[in-house]
Amino acid sequence: MKPKRYLVLAEGVSADPHYGKTMQGVLRYRREDVVAILDSTRAGQSEDGLPVVASVDDAVRFGPTTALVGVATQGGRFPPEWIDLLRSCVSNGLDVENGLHVFLGDDPELVELARRHGAELHDLRRPPADLSTVTGENLEVDAQIVLTVGSDCAIGKMTVCCELDLEARRRGLRSVFVPTGQTGIAIAGWGIAVDAVVSDFLAGATERLVVDGARRGDLIWVEGQGALLHPLYSGVTLGLMHGSVPHAYVLCHEAGRTEIEGAAGHHAIPPLAELVELHERISLPVRPARVVAVAVNTRALDEEAARAAVAEAEAETGLPADDPVRFGAGRLLDAVLAGLKLEPARAD
Amino acid sequence: MKPKRYLVLAEGVSADPHYGKTMQGVLRYRREDVVAILDSTRAGQSEDGLPVVASVDDAVRFGPTTALVGVATQGGRFPPEWIDLLRSCVSNGLDVENGLHVFLGDDPELVELARRHGAELHDLRRPPADLSTVTGENLEVDAQIVLTVGSDCAIGKMTVCCELDLEARRRGLRSVFVPTGQTGIAIAGWGIAVDAVVSDFLAGATERLVVDGARRGDLIWVEGQGALLHPLYSGVTLGLMHGSVPHAYVLCHEAGRTEIEGAAGHHAIPPLAELVELHERISLPVRPARVVAVAVNTRALDEEAARAAVAEAEAETGLPADDPVRFGAGRLLDAVLAGLKLEPARAD
Repeated sequence: MKPKRYLVLAEGVSADPHYGKTMQGVLRYRREDVVAILDSTRAGQSEDGLPVVASVDDAVRFGPTTALVGVATQGGRFPPEWIDLLRSCVSNGLDVENGLHVFLGDDPELVELARRHGAELHDLRRPPADLSTVTGENLEVDAQIVLTVGSDCAIGKMTVCCELDLEARRRGLRSVFVPTGQTGIAIAGWGIAVDAVVSDFLAGATERLVVDGARRGDLIWVEGQGALLHPLYSGVTLGLMHGSVPHAYVLCHEAGRTEIEGAAGHHAIPPLAELVELHERISLPVRPARVVAVAVNTRALDEEAARAAVAEAEAETGLPADDPVRFGAGRLLDAVLAGLKLEPARAD
Repeated sequence: MKPKRYLVLAEGVSADPHYGKTMQGVLRYRREDVVAILDSTRAGQSEDGLPVVASVDDAVRFGPTTALVGVATQGGRFPPEWIDLLRSCVSNGLDVENGLHVFLGDDPELVELARRHGAELHDLRRPPADLSTVTGENLEVDAQIVLTVGSDCAIGKMTVCCELDLEARRRGLRSVFVPTGQTGIAIAGWGIAVDAVVSDFLAGATERLVVDGARRGDLIWVEGQGALLHPLYSGVTLGLMHGSVPHAYVLCHEAGRTEIEGAAGHHAIPPLAELVELHERISLPVRPARVVAVAVNTRALDEEAARAAVAEAEAETGLPADDPVRFGAGRLLDAVLAGLKLEPARAD
């Protein structure tokens, strides 16, 4: 398989941290495979040291093999103006990776154009066709499984997995990140977008990810989704918890966030200590799991306030807490390994 | 719309309470609309006072308008020998209602045959195409919402809804049963099989059911699915709990069942009092809901043991308990109305 060289499509949103979520994730954790970013509104500038170009034609000289749809819009629909852009990619022989709800493979004209130009269309959110319910194989895998859970959506559960995985690999552990959403899939190159799976097979899809993950490593970090008390996505959260049968949880929280955000019927986020207990209570009796650490997202705070927020999370829960993006993932990894009763491996 | 007259297709399984689940439900709650049962292995016998016939040709004299697929097989696949049977139905001009995972509408030959004979194919588990996430409309409906929850799958959550709805309507209440699975849909003639919905839209599908239900009545009984600690289906359970935003729960349990049945990673069913607390704890803070009654399925017990099991459930939980199938739904309905602080309406 030839190495991928990504052109990240971020028309109009390359500077927007919310809509550019997939782009940001790939830039952070797969930077070495990106050659350019497409956003005609910022053409000629650079982003994270990468050239921003106005069109696919302008991007060709950087030698991309694959265009990545880096937007994540509400409901996952495709902005109509994107169709021309996608045709341009395919006409230039670029494969396309798409993380939206709408599938490129369902557009017969684009499929035909891709066929003519030898380009491949990959819909990252399209679930495998042969999913089923849980078989019990998830309980038999010979790996330690850690799941990130959260006090809300969009607070960095994937990022925490990636940081812990990177740190564990730096220490020489056979660690693997298990993606359950489109950005994670774009980063890792495999995975299933579990929220796109039929509800009946949600836990079964998660079981498959854990079984596949255990073939790739001994310590696996499963990307959590939603939140147990989220009015929209709690079903996905619990299916993921029970299907992945984790040995331990890392509870993720954004400092200063007090309410479930952007959701109808939003409510106050319960105290962290209550969330710890609720996750432990609702774990399957065959695999009781504890919360072993709290990851605190302090992006909105200055350094002093960030340290105070971490200390507060520790005091509230009695668990080790840290912001792995800001302060490094070392302390959290130590806490997880201690929680799993594994040796605290060191890189040096 | 012409009234439906059902021929229930139950080839080889009309006497099997497990595989004939859809048939049993329709016979119990929609008996007046069934004209015959097809099962060539029992042709000439009668079932619940209805003629059992060997073939569609034999059934025609009873004047059916609609054939109902009454099997519920593991994974929902269609036994191959059924294809000829379905063709025979359609060739005789019968509409077909199908509750399996496999959709009749995806079989081009059957679709063409139905078109030629003016027959309609209805796939009861096919979700609407325009589902979305929760909007918050569920919190605004002007109806009292009751959800059945359970200690395990397949213990009668739908039956409890139907019995409570029947009893409430007998008392003159504007009561409505809200179906979330194929048998319920066959009984009520509307609904969404929520486990067939993409996980992202699970709570949204449930919201739509509650909104539709509230247009049909003031007191709505939402059919629960799965169980909160079921290794396969818990995600569906929680999505349904949060999407339907119930004012009260009825906890369903089968007397004598001590383990989650037939599931990989099965485990002991926790004490009922713990289950009551767990369901209440995980309710959305914007709509805190209490368990107001316990429905005990005593089908495996004799009369004396049944009364003892009901008394035991009451002692364990401190809540009113009863078996509505065996002893009538009056006491449970009284408990629910009291829990909702509604007047205890009487038929007389």
